[in-house]
Amino acid sequence: MKPIQVGLCGVGTVGGGTATVLKRNCEEIARRAGRPIVVRIAANRNLERARAVLGDSIELIDDALAIARHPDVEIVVELIGGTTIAKELVLTAIENGKHVVTANKKLIAEYGNEIFARAQEKGVMVAFEAAVAGGIPVIKALREGLTANRIEWVAGIINGTSNFILTEMRDKGAAFADVLAEAQRLGYAEADPTFDIEGHDAGHKLTIMSAIAFGIPVQFDKAYLEGISKLQAADIKYAQELGYRIKLLGVTRRRAEGIELRVAPTLIPEKRLIANVDGVMNAVLVKGDAVGATLYYGPGAGAEPTASSVIADLVDITRLATADPEHRVPHLAFQPSALADLPILPISEVETCYYLRLNALDQTGVLASVTRILADQGISVDAMLQRPSDEASDDGRDDVVIITHLAVEKRVDAAIAQIEALPAINGKIVKLRLEHLNG
Amino acid sequence: MKPIQVGLCGVGTVGGGTATVLKRNCEEIARRAGRPIVVRIAANRNLERARAVLGDSIELIDDALAIARHPDVEIVVELIGGTTIAKELVLTAIENGKHVVTANKKLIAEYGNEIFARAQEKGVMVAFEAAVAGGIPVIKALREGLTANRIEWVAGIINGTSNFILTEMRDKGAAFADVLAEAQRLGYAEADPTFDIEGHDAGHKLTIMSAIAFGIPVQFDKAYLEGISKLQAADIKYAQELGYRIKLLGVTRRRAEGIELRVAPTLIPEKRLIANVDGVMNAVLVKGDAVGATLYYGPGAGAEPTASSVIADLVDITRLATADPEHRVPHLAFQPSALADLPILPISEVETCYYLRLNALDQTGVLASVTRILADQGISVDAMLQRPSDEASDDGRDDVVIITHLAVEKRVDAAIAQIEALPAINGKIVKLRLEHLNG
Repeated sequence: MKPIQVGLCGVGTVGGGTATVLKRNCEEIARRAGRPIVVRIAANRNLERARAVLGDSIELIDDALAIARHPDVEIVVELIGGTTIAKELVLTAIENGKHVVTANKKLIAEYGNEIFARAQEKGVMVAFEAAVAGGIPVIKALREGLTANRIEWVAGIINGTSNFILTEMRDKGAAFADVLAEAQRLGYAEADPTFDIEGHDAGHKLTIMSAIAFGIPVQFDKAYLEGISKLQAADIKYAQELGYRIKLLGVTRRRAEGIELRVAPTLIPEKRLIANVDGVMNAVLVKGDAVGATLYYGPGAGAEPTASSVIADLVDITRLATADPEHRVPHLAFQPSALADLPILPISEVETCYYLRLNALDQTGVLASVTRILADQGISVDAMLQRPSDEASDDGRDDVVIITHLAVEKRVDAAIAQIEALPAINGKIVKLRLEHLNG
Repeated sequence: MKPIQVGLCGVGTVGGGTATVLKRNCEEIARRAGRPIVVRIAANRNLERARAVLGDSIELIDDALAIARHPDVEIVVELIGGTTIAKELVLTAIENGKHVVTANKKLIAEYGNEIFARAQEKGVMVAFEAAVAGGIPVIKALREGLTANRIEWVAGIINGTSNFILTEMRDKGAAFADVLAEAQRLGYAEADPTFDIEGHDAGHKLTIMSAIAFGIPVQFDKAYLEGISKLQAADIKYAQELGYRIKLLGVTRRRAEGIELRVAPTLIPEKRLIANVDGVMNAVLVKGDAVGATLYYGPGAGAEPTASSVIADLVDITRLATADPEHRVPHLAFQPSALADLPILPISEVETCYYLRLNALDQTGVLASVTRILADQGISVDAMLQRPSDEASDDGRDDVVIITHLAVEKRVDAAIAQIEALPAINGKIVKLRLEHLNG
């Protein structure tokens, strides 16, 4: 059968990996897809660099938009990144009746609604498995594998850089800044690591999963993002004493009032499988009402893992191209006419458990005042830990760690403000969220 | 849009769960599938029992074959089990142009080739996500999520009963027979547990995954099956001392000579995520050449988890029904004309690492003889452990545990025969396989 002709835009790490795997496994892929999938033409701004990656066998140009209009190209693969050229490229490809595969989480999380609407009008598919959790086929699991379920929540370790840093902080008892420097040296963190360590990257991925899980439009602007740069080694240690690990966790949960959508360093019971996902690996835990909890684990980045997802999308499109557009798998799992208008809740309305650490003068009555304030806000205590804050100096100050039961964030914040005002309390209270992730 | 009409054959645990979930989540499922999915008619031999499960809203008959011929039914769901009526039902449904969804691992593993060939001729789909690992969408991952990859191996904990028993044996240091009795009391094991504990159930599931991973026909008759009933508590303890867990592991691996296909109690390094899958949970680890290792974890049985997979198949069929038959996802992941004829290797040709436990008189020269025999067979030793076999009696006998590097099974068996013939060796040698499962 006639090969499917692909136009590859962006020949960096993932673009190079995609070309390599398509070539290496061409026979196997054709046996699965029913026809060969070949790169007809590729585009890269720096032709010389792209030539070094691709070799001489693939036609190469410097204008990606020309690929979106190329008469031979049936599927455009967008691996440029960002939201300027990439967005124009994707919309142009759609206008020209071409299917699109992209690994661009930012583009989908911020402009997905517009892109999917245009694709729907033109009857083409936009596939983005590689945008979330690299090589793990979690978009497919959510969109096709769990269709029987009312999804209750999704929780994911979906940023490898942050997970590597947190794993090293725990294993070595090291400070954030030191581990970040090491991660940069090893190539696990960018020179400017903001996007990874402040939760933006995880937020993009979580936004996409939230839309697919609950049948809502993508709404990245409403996501709450808190990174790991302020996390202290002391809290990792105390969490461990209490039987928890701290992970940069993306959590999106359906409640009657709306959807929680948040990324933050979060305590997880160490006995959960997902608490043991270490280093640069990713994992996503999904709770459905019928199936219970299922977990998807694997490499969240890298040339060939990401290429694995890009090519899976190419095979899907090849297989689905003959289905009538009304019956293909919908972009956001639910039919576009059937998206819900559940609001994304502000962080103040989030309901979860909390870890609080305060520094208090070791004097009678302080703990009584603290627990009274919590009780007045309707917050009940699950566990408490008290340790001298500095064993060497014995300055009469204690670290007090409190784990709460379920509470609403605004009540917790109100309690924190009152506790910080007590004369025996020193400085600010550390607040982290805690998820039990019960299956 | 007009609902898809389903005929439900078999109203036991899974059948009841399927009806329940279809009804409870009907709105959500229709939003995903583009049209409602309804049970038009159900069949069960015992009408009274089925009526108690389904209530009065669904038409109920006692003849499943009538459903396979029913003019209104578009998809037949086979949840009867076994390979007599179930096989006739599935083939009759196909003859009558109906799509089929089944949870029947035995039927697919033993008669899949015949069933898929008939379905191909008639242009209908046969879907069987529920046949492997209950609610975990691992068939979908293998068949659609990892299509870019040359799959190297698949390893799975795919029998919940056995995993529960092994977990209890480890946690309580208890003997197999005692834990089995407890599992039977808790309803985790059948009155006749042979099918679960001797590896038949896991073998069926592994056979199906092997076919999909490597593009070969299903060949259950060539699978090597070894159960857990002879496993001794001592070996679980020694394995733990050496940093391993013992799991009933299904392993299928592609080698140049052919395919390994085997179920047996197997040591896994405890630091692997899959080694920490405990109780009745299931997990499948897949190694692809591009993505590396990805893991899929969740409940492997139960009414609603299995229903979750049955219904996902119903949604898939609804979505794919309009695609031309040549372009649908192939039953065994690869196009039927493109299946490979790689042979399944006999167990004697398997290459893996081994755990050997022997009981030896604690005298000079015994260990030297043992290691010389191993060396003569080309088997190198990775680790060794020596412990008094009975600390109380101090009878001058030691348990010697040997972990080998990679070796071919027939060489190991030859070495074992020679070692057992040594005068200082007492009784038979315990042999278990060991998988490092490197990502």
